Amino acid sequence: MITLHHLLASRSFRIVWLLEEIAVPFELKQYARVDGRAPQEFKKLSPLGKSPVLTDGDLTLFESGAIVEYLVRKYARQMKPSEGEEKALLQYDYWMHDSEGSMMPFLWAVFFLDTGAQKTPFFMRFIIDLFVKGIRSQYLDPEIQSMFKYTDDHLAKNTYFAGDNLSGADIMMSFPLTVAYKRKGSEFEGKYLHIERWLRLIEGRPAYQAALAKVEDKDQFELNLPSH
Amino acid sequence: MITLHHLLASRSFRIVWLLEEIAVPFELKQYARVDGRAPQEFKKLSPLGKSPVLTDGDLTLFESGAIVEYLVRKYARQMKPSEGEEKALLQYDYWMHDSEGSMMPFLWAVFFLDTGAQKTPFFMRFIIDLFVKGIRSQYLDPEIQSMFKYTDDHLAKNTYFAGDNLSGADIMMSFPLTVAYKRKGSEFEGKYLHIERWLRLIEGRPAYQAALAKVEDKDQFELNLPSH
Repeated sequence: MITLHHLLASRSFRIVWLLEEIAVPFELKQYARVDGRAPQEFKKLSPLGKSPVLTDGDLTLFESGAIVEYLVRKYARQMKPSEGEEKALLQYDYWMHDSEGSMMPFLWAVFFLDTGAQKTPFFMRFIIDLFVKGIRSQYLDPEIQSMFKYTDDHLAKNTYFAGDNLSGADIMMSFPLTVAYKRKGSEFEGKYLHIERWLRLIEGRPAYQAALAKVEDKDQFELNLPSH
Repeated sequence: MITLHHLLASRSFRIVWLLEEIAVPFELKQYARVDGRAPQEFKKLSPLGKSPVLTDGDLTLFESGAIVEYLVRKYARQMKPSEGEEKALLQYDYWMHDSEGSMMPFLWAVFFLDTGAQKTPFFMRFIIDLFVKGIRSQYLDPEIQSMFKYTDDHLAKNTYFAGDNLSGADIMMSFPLTVAYKRKGSEFEGKYLHIERWLRLIEGRPAYQAALAKVEDKDQFELNLPSH
């Protein structure tokens, strides 16, 4: 029996979606955050206490990319291109690693600095805002725009991330793209039309809707983008 | 013919090492940084201009994890556990993704905030230092120590990251661990003896030494840890 431990408002929604896509029965345990962090109960599940944690029989797995590789290998081979499909396989590997290896660190840094600045006492606020604005404008924001442009160009030529079929790479990429549009809507909306087309495509899948129906934090992942 | 484009003091040293391990002939092109960033010449190599970039015939590849998967699949199958070795394969997938997905974002955030603080004009410096110290002590440093402890416990029970043999996971993990010890030596040295054992083990490999001999920035990656 598979159990997915889902920390609300975290990376793990995409694993709920993947489990619905591959139609494997699973139990979903949901954990509310305490002061924005994982509760003690969640931290006992794995040595690092980070979301998501998946158990399958005796196995306990964490690290999103590794969980996707495991579920795809064991239950849904069709969600990874075979070695005969070299081009699709190269795309799969690229986006599987790009999601947490390149895209997320930059989005996370922005979120993290903005949150840190908001928590700063009023008397320090002006200087901290200058510092954060400097880092964002000189470094983070141009990198993010450049990655979104590259992603958009890729989706202009491909239905899904690894070609014509939904794959693990779409599952991995769904988190950074969804949260970017939800949390920073005005910075992105209308700029990357192929990303928006892909977001509407995944949101329209029955398995995505089934996953949304199960989670308590559905408004984090429900997009309702204009259809243009 | 394979060409590796190596930006000095970057993630790509581990790909030089991997190419030496698998004994595939390759051309190494090295690029010095300009004001700490990749030079214009490097940025033309790929749409995102980030290091490393590898070309193999008509193919241009980037994103470290994807490059490792490609080279291992095409030239060195023995460097990824087979599906019959389930435990080793789970470890392989975990550390392949942990390296850039969990370990690097935290190390990078610390490096990035420290560098930002150092560049701050003197009159703002006291407040920025307080801000950075707050984020580090409340959040980043405990996460890093927790990840290093987990990594150390893993290496207490395994010679290499995916069991008894060198694999792509060791290649990926070498960058965060090497730079942590080089850049933040005093915070780490003597605390994680199994990580240090593994660092000495990889540094002792002829292919690692051959890679060091080729790069212009060898002092970034040469460790010379005490042997205890």
